Amino acid sequence: MAATKVLNASETEAAIAGLSALLGDRLTTSAALREAHGRDESWHPVMPPDAVAFATSTEEVAAIVRICAAHRFPVIPFGTGTSLEGHISAPRGGLSLDLSRMNRIIAVNAADLDVHVEAGVTRKVLNAYLRDMGLFFPIDPGADASLGGMAATRASGTNAVRYGTMRENVLNLTAVMADGRIVRTARRARKSAAGYDLTRLLVGSEGTLGIITELTLRLYGIPEAISAGVVSFPAFEGAIEAVIETIQSGLPVARIEFLDEVQVAACNRYSKLSLPETPLLLVEFHGSEASVAEQATRFGEIAAAHGGGAFEWATKAEERTRLWEARHNALYASLALQPGKKGMTTDVCVPISRLAEAIKGTKDDLAKSRLVAPMVGHVGDGNFHLIMLVDPDNADDIAEARRIHDRMVTRALSLDGTCTGEHGIGEGKIKFLEAEHGAGVAVMRAIKQALDPLDILNPGKMLPY
Amino acid sequence: MAATKVLNASETEAAIAGLSALLGDRLTTSAALREAHGRDESWHPVMPPDAVAFATSTEEVAAIVRICAAHRFPVIPFGTGTSLEGHISAPRGGLSLDLSRMNRIIAVNAADLDVHVEAGVTRKVLNAYLRDMGLFFPIDPGADASLGGMAATRASGTNAVRYGTMRENVLNLTAVMADGRIVRTARRARKSAAGYDLTRLLVGSEGTLGIITELTLRLYGIPEAISAGVVSFPAFEGAIEAVIETIQSGLPVARIEFLDEVQVAACNRYSKLSLPETPLLLVEFHGSEASVAEQATRFGEIAAAHGGGAFEWATKAEERTRLWEARHNALYASLALQPGKKGMTTDVCVPISRLAEAIKGTKDDLAKSRLVAPMVGHVGDGNFHLIMLVDPDNADDIAEARRIHDRMVTRALSLDGTCTGEHGIGEGKIKFLEAEHGAGVAVMRAIKQALDPLDILNPGKMLPY
Repeated sequence: MAATKVLNASETEAAIAGLSALLGDRLTTSAALREAHGRDESWHPVMPPDAVAFATSTEEVAAIVRICAAHRFPVIPFGTGTSLEGHISAPRGGLSLDLSRMNRIIAVNAADLDVHVEAGVTRKVLNAYLRDMGLFFPIDPGADASLGGMAATRASGTNAVRYGTMRENVLNLTAVMADGRIVRTARRARKSAAGYDLTRLLVGSEGTLGIITELTLRLYGIPEAISAGVVSFPAFEGAIEAVIETIQSGLPVARIEFLDEVQVAACNRYSKLSLPETPLLLVEFHGSEASVAEQATRFGEIAAAHGGGAFEWATKAEERTRLWEARHNALYASLALQPGKKGMTTDVCVPISRLAEAIKGTKDDLAKSRLVAPMVGHVGDGNFHLIMLVDPDNADDIAEARRIHDRMVTRALSLDGTCTGEHGIGEGKIKFLEAEHGAGVAVMRAIKQALDPLDILNPGKMLPY
Repeated sequence: MAATKVLNASETEAAIAGLSALLGDRLTTSAALREAHGRDESWHPVMPPDAVAFATSTEEVAAIVRICAAHRFPVIPFGTGTSLEGHISAPRGGLSLDLSRMNRIIAVNAADLDVHVEAGVTRKVLNAYLRDMGLFFPIDPGADASLGGMAATRASGTNAVRYGTMRENVLNLTAVMADGRIVRTARRARKSAAGYDLTRLLVGSEGTLGIITELTLRLYGIPEAISAGVVSFPAFEGAIEAVIETIQSGLPVARIEFLDEVQVAACNRYSKLSLPETPLLLVEFHGSEASVAEQATRFGEIAAAHGGGAFEWATKAEERTRLWEARHNALYASLALQPGKKGMTTDVCVPISRLAEAIKGTKDDLAKSRLVAPMVGHVGDGNFHLIMLVDPDNADDIAEARRIHDRMVTRALSLDGTCTGEHGIGEGKIKFLEAEHGAGVAVMRAIKQALDPLDILNPGKMLPY
């Protein structure tokens, strides 16, 4: 890997001059915009880029990258800024390449259940557009993220247990490589055995191998029937056992979310609900009327067998929306518990047979800690999140949160899990990549070196140096 | 890419001597074994390796690769030899590394629905082992292939429409890289956002980036109920329309196979069936008793609306087995049509909205040709196969088959499809890789160069030089 490059002023100036000539007022060095582009939704410090560019086409992105390559000027792709591990900060300066104006929905192929979009389209915009066609795109990380950003971070969320993650739902993507070449990774066929899987290589590469500018995504018919419900458990162990049995029995649950008692209390307060403040599962079923009813009955039996309380169904769209909005607002609800504090958010993912162990370890750590930290999880996948509330100016808070975080990740790895199920590495988890992948990191580094020899694509992220 | 290396005799001798010292009688240069290892099930010519090694562990594979690397001796991984595009031949000599003795099923994690196996375990052996636990591994390419080989070629088959391909069903794999390093690509978590997706990079890499020695695969519960049935159509168009509507309606069909009238006739003769000799769909549904019944009813309605005839159900296991055995024996049934001829087998995959067009183009070509060529397809994915019967010693047969083949592939690409849905590139489709991937081929080549700089892993396959 090329040694870390410190830009000198004249290179920076030359790059900005070249970009400015290309983009006019779509290239800015305004302090406010630079600041806004160096910050995501995480606790990581703001590191602003030297400039921000607003691109409008794949060809323009290619031209931008060629200018940046000529000056070894870092390029950091930016969608909506909703990442959670400092993915979009500019530790080495450079250009934040904002793709939000690339927001065209290029083609919906209803017969093939796919859609071709530009990278800046957000998931909510896409789903609003699709609704009248009876179609939807299921990947739902909570935030209204851009689809390019979701691909770049291998996002997933609540629906992944049924529909998979971005890994399974990107048919192909168009990317600008480090030298400005434009690559379309695949055709629109549902499957292919032709060559290396460049689609999957770029999905989850966090902008370090190429800049995703367009994507073709899989779509699904809006289910004929949807039902959602909540069931409370006296303790988290019963909830997790119910999840394991649900998954093992092949019940095609569309969502199965865990909230611990701290999170439930936060949601009650924030979203004006009156859920019992004990661990709970929030579930959703998709299918025909008959199959949804059958699934719900079977899930109810499973929950009851593991100590679950009365099952409350919300088959009406408004009730469902209210429950799921509360779930989606879990982060904001958590932050509202201690106004003025920031949320240090993290996630891990383990085989579900080890999930109770993973959760218990962190709950035990928290019981001995003064930090308040709601927990929420996409437990059908073995994935859970912790939101530790910290005062960023209080070194003790930060140290304590880091300690609990490190123990949570180390424990997940010891249980054959991963240091992040869906947030990505960014800069926040670089130190765990080697612990997780061992010799695989050298393979990743060789790929990075081969595809971005000047190290201009989102440098300083993901790979340890 | 390193220039093609022609081995000199002393290097070959030195490599074989080193391997022989390591492996004893598990290294052989017997002509019969070399011949058997230079041949797959395709029409491609036999190109035997210089030697064959039978490995027994990942560590031993690493030691073998280190010896081969020291002498720049090609290494060609071999599972069961059931590939279809010349993947396992040895155009530059070298070692066929037979993994069939690495056949341990290491651990079934029933709660997590996964299994850790050595690469030489075949899918039928695995499924026989799992049956009593109520579990199965769905990927079914027809042949009783090794699971390592199936991963290496990104295999799929009849169940892919419901369960995905090897791409979606490998949780992690252990691979020996070109320098002998052992990499485990991921943990056992269902999803991860930690680093580049080395699992998916190796799945489908056809032995050119690393040698897959172990895998963790996703499992599924054996469905409570399975039903299968056949429905005939007067012409293929109605069958394809029925497929499109089935997929679009979200019906979770587990298998939906198309056989053209030539293939049906061949199956009738070979498998002693009495199906009407017109195009047909063979379908299977998995689920609860109630959901299977519901799916079957809905499919019956869809088929009828597109001109399908009476729907014949086979809910009994024996009847189902008989039908699916006939489907699985389609290749042998086809070969039996003209004894003495060989089957030039190929596959393409297109978006299903373009499937009728793709099929019609090839049927029209065949109508004007003297070749007999049954057609069969995993049409829920837009994937279909052609088995052209040719006399390998008849240059006219070969030329005619190549012409139809080229037109079929070129047509698939023009319909935004892929040159191969599931057979892979091997040596048979190298010439189409550039047409399909354009600038992507340079990216693939850069990755190959970075990970196998001496070009010893299955050289001469997949990538054009």
